[in-house]
Amino acid sequence: MNATVSDVADWWATSVCRMEPGIVELRGIPVQDLIGSTGLVATIWLLTRGALPSPGETALLEAALVAAVDHGPQAPSIAIARMAVTCGVGLNNAMASGVNALGDVHGGAGEQCVELLNEIVDRESGGQSLTDAVAATLGEYRYVPGFGHRFHPVDPRRDPLLALVDQAVAEGIVAGKHVRAARAVETALNQDRDTPVPMNIDGATAVIYAELGFPPPLARGLFVLSRSVGILAHAWEESNQGRRNKGPIPPSILPTYQGDPTHPPGRPAPTDAARTLE
Amino acid sequence: MNATVSDVADWWATSVCRMEPGIVELRGIPVQDLIGSTGLVATIWLLTRGALPSPGETALLEAALVAAVDHGPQAPSIAIARMAVTCGVGLNNAMASGVNALGDVHGGAGEQCVELLNEIVDRESGGQSLTDAVAATLGEYRYVPGFGHRFHPVDPRRDPLLALVDQAVAEGIVAGKHVRAARAVETALNQDRDTPVPMNIDGATAVIYAELGFPPPLARGLFVLSRSVGILAHAWEESNQGRRNKGPIPPSILPTYQGDPTHPPGRPAPTDAARTLE
Amino acid sequence: MNATVSDVADWWATSVCRMEPGIVELRGIPVQDLIGSTGLVATIWLLTRGALPSPGETALLEAALVAAVDHGPQAPSIAIARMAVTCGVGLNNAMASGVNALGDVHGGAGEQCVELLNEIVDRESGGQSLTDAVAATLGEYRYVPGFGHRFHPVDPRRDPLLALVDQAVAEGIVAGKHVRAARAVETALNQDRDTPVPMNIDGATAVIYAELGFPPPLARGLFVLSRSVGILAHAWEESNQGRRNKGPIPPSILPTYQGDPTHPPGRPAPTDAARTLE
Amino acid sequence: MNATVSDVADWWATSVCRMEPGIVELRGIPVQDLIGSTGLVATIWLLTRGALPSPGETALLEAALVAAVDHGPQAPSIAIARMAVTCGVGLNNAMASGVNALGDVHGGAGEQCVELLNEIVDRESGGQSLTDAVAATLGEYRYVPGFGHRFHPVDPRRDPLLALVDQAVAEGIVAGKHVRAARAVETALNQDRDTPVPMNIDGATAVIYAELGFPPPLARGLFVLSRSVGILAHAWEESNQGRRNKGPIPPSILPTYQGDPTHPPGRPAPTDAARTLE
Repeated sequence: MNATVSDVADWWATSVCRMEPGIVELRGIPVQDLIGSTGLVATIWLLTRGALPSPGETALLEAALVAAVDHGPQAPSIAIARMAVTCGVGLNNAMASGVNALGDVHGGAGEQCVELLNEIVDRESGGQSLTDAVAATLGEYRYVPGFGHRFHPVDPRRDPLLALVDQAVAEGIVAGKHVRAARAVETALNQDRDTPVPMNIDGATAVIYAELGFPPPLARGLFVLSRSVGILAHAWEESNQGRRNKGPIPPSILPTYQGDPTHPPGRPAPTDAARTLE
Repeated sequence: MNATVSDVADWWATSVCRMEPGIVELRGIPVQDLIGSTGLVATIWLLTRGALPSPGETALLEAALVAAVDHGPQAPSIAIARMAVTCGVGLNNAMASGVNALGDVHGGAGEQCVELLNEIVDRESGGQSLTDAVAATLGEYRYVPGFGHRFHPVDPRRDPLLALVDQAVAEGIVAGKHVRAARAVETALNQDRDTPVPMNIDGATAVIYAELGFPPPLARGLFVLSRSVGILAHAWEESNQGRRNKGPIPPSILPTYQGDPTHPPGRPAPTDAARTLE
Repeated sequence: MNATVSDVADWWATSVCRMEPGIVELRGIPVQDLIGSTGLVATIWLLTRGALPSPGETALLEAALVAAVDHGPQAPSIAIARMAVTCGVGLNNAMASGVNALGDVHGGAGEQCVELLNEIVDRESGGQSLTDAVAATLGEYRYVPGFGHRFHPVDPRRDPLLALVDQAVAEGIVAGKHVRAARAVETALNQDRDTPVPMNIDGATAVIYAELGFPPPLARGLFVLSRSVGILAHAWEESNQGRRNKGPIPPSILPTYQGDPTHPPGRPAPTDAARTLE
Repeated sequence: MNATVSDVADWWATSVCRMEPGIVELRGIPVQDLIGSTGLVATIWLLTRGALPSPGETALLEAALVAAVDHGPQAPSIAIARMAVTCGVGLNNAMASGVNALGDVHGGAGEQCVELLNEIVDRESGGQSLTDAVAATLGEYRYVPGFGHRFHPVDPRRDPLLALVDQAVAEGIVAGKHVRAARAVETALNQDRDTPVPMNIDGATAVIYAELGFPPPLARGLFVLSRSVGILAHAWEESNQGRRNKGPIPPSILPTYQGDPTHPPGRPAPTDAARTLE
């Protein structure tokens, strides 16, 4: 056992927070210097990026975070949190169960869309035309993250977010390469289609996160912060409605039983059992 | 099976969000009317309370949310998220594991402190003197939630938060009953002690949540939103340090084995086994 | 900083597991002595109780664990796990979201029922008649945990579990006080009712856990182990059906919007906003 | 809104469980026919595979499940659950936080190792020699899942598990192709090394899961079931030790602060901020 107490302290080394008796510093700034003068969104930027943003950057990030707070109970994360809170757990537990579902498919589209936009911009920087960069990049995806929606023909959040990005480009706050790439993706996707596949909320916020220089995984993290607001509001509303053990559908509707009704309790050969699973 | 499709729609009824093709409304306001004009903190208020706050209310809530974002890796929620992210899960999963630990003891102190302050204010409204109301209320608690800290003799976040509350009282934004109650609790707790038990971050933010009229469970919910920022920042930092399967202490230090080393693999009488557990 | 490396090792002291290079001992027994000779249920007992159970105890515990593995997608835990797995997270994450919902109302009934049965048995030991002990104990509960079911008039798992307990009493494996208490509760509850409130699965398994001497919180823990089996099976089935972002109801059914459709985006007085929440 | 109530029932269709008033059937078998006659491990097989296993299959699966129940508090899943339970949440929440961390790196090695073994066996079936199949497959991996351990030079669980597999091959219970592949991997890995990289617990249990025909994702699911036992035992032990808000190291040791102590609260150019994160 050669480790020292100093190794133990180093095991938990961090540059996010300095905590000592009487001291809490966030990225080098005493917390008391932030309280009352710095907003929540700027503090999110500070903690994840290491320095404070400009007012223009803050405003753009704030718009993206506001836009994604909620999408109603058809979103699995919201439904999960509402069901969980009826089971006798705290709001924090209900929120955790909801947040936990913001995975590659539900919340991860923003992260993947930032990667996609970064790749297009990188290809352009490497000398490809935008059209070629888009075509080459889209060829790698089966589902194009950030585009298309099962509910909205046009997502009401797309236009106001892109308008804010355009304004930020005009003001020199961001460079505008990623928003241009995103519009080119939209054009390419809709070229030969009758039903359009427009940019959705994940795409529009990914444009903002990418323009602001957030690495792709943080796009998911920022979406978690944003959607946590709706998750909290729904869990709280549900807890005031008083249901206990709320299932996904009214209790009088029984899930369809798909099994073989004549299934004998015997046992098929193991290879058969395995095959039915694949 | 008497339920109708309408019953199914009602099973998920909500007043938080109206979602239809092309429409996302939050508490009756089209989301596009919020994007770019309403901040994240006002949106948090809107979703949880049902209407928009005044600028003064927003500022006070924002200060509380900023103050609690992080307290370093000695907080179990932060350490849990950092360890989880080294196990090969997404940032949302790591954040969920951290948020999940913000329970009655870790994150619940704010909720309990709002209840305590409400009780004192209610007793005062019922005719008791503040001193009597405090004494009667404190008698019910073993640990007084929101007061005392294992790390900080004086919490650096207490004074700036209370100063903002005092200012809001002066400006007529909040009534000031809960902050008066909290100060009276502090006085009562420290009357006969050598080591003071000052208001901590949970207490100071509870004052704000209570003054702003948030029901107690939302105090925990708001703390979750706030601390999620630090949880994200730490999980992200850890994921960039590249450790895999990070344990709580360096691998060369082995947890002390407390069991009986001469324990026979036999089996004591069941009643004995049960007794040792109680 | 006065802590030593030895303090760090002690911080994680445990008698459950001794782990050193080349050594894994569980409650003092080398793991290689368990593999192939000791079953999973006996190992569950060993780890939670500190010693191995007798074969009769194992059989009774095993029956309880088998009985509660699944109750279909109307159980929130199952529905949550099925929805979560369609969001692009691992089976472990989907299982965690489901397990997380086994709270005081969903999974906690077993824990509370063990407490209730223990209280009746304690009152009897203290000299009260069984009838008086039951009446006094029931007076403390609004919902009687472990009795009644929203789906089953008679729970098909009740009779076979109680039959196994009766047999274990006859064989001297358990004392039989808790099963007698549970039947007395059932009689008391049904005395003046038309619709019976029979013992449910939480009640029947609580009888077993209580007879076997498990402390109440472990009743919930054991239920988690049992229901995790069904949660896994359902999450796995769902992941093979290929849905993405599965909501609680088919996407064509929109949750009822309950908000005021004429809601102005203005802002009512803060006290009003607060009042509507309470 | 064209969906019918029948569509709603179908949305939750399942062949795992048939639940109607008075009826609970698991994979077509009434639950009362399982209680008392079928063990927990056979029930795990039934629910995940759709039919009951043979006694030999059950015994092999049981050994794998027993072997992985615990590895002490240096495993992140165990440490997380122990910390969580001190924060005032239920045992189910503490277990969920632990299980949630059994991701690609912590619990996923078994799943990946089943994939690796399947690929080798498939290549052999396609005509390659075992040596070639192993070489070709290993070329695709940076870390070889299921081999090597940061704690154990030789994992004490490896030999007894492989001995049981050999016996099952001899008795015709399993075919033996995957165990042969795993030993060939071990040989290949250790050919040119001084320090051996022996099969670890994930590897040894993956051999069993693969021989028994479990699809790779279920290897992770089965590990979750197994490790949940240790997670429960540790969370329970910790909750009896009475700590509140347990951090990862003793409170007197402060995590090393890595930030620049002279960090000005100003703001670098956004591209700089972004660059430091990458």
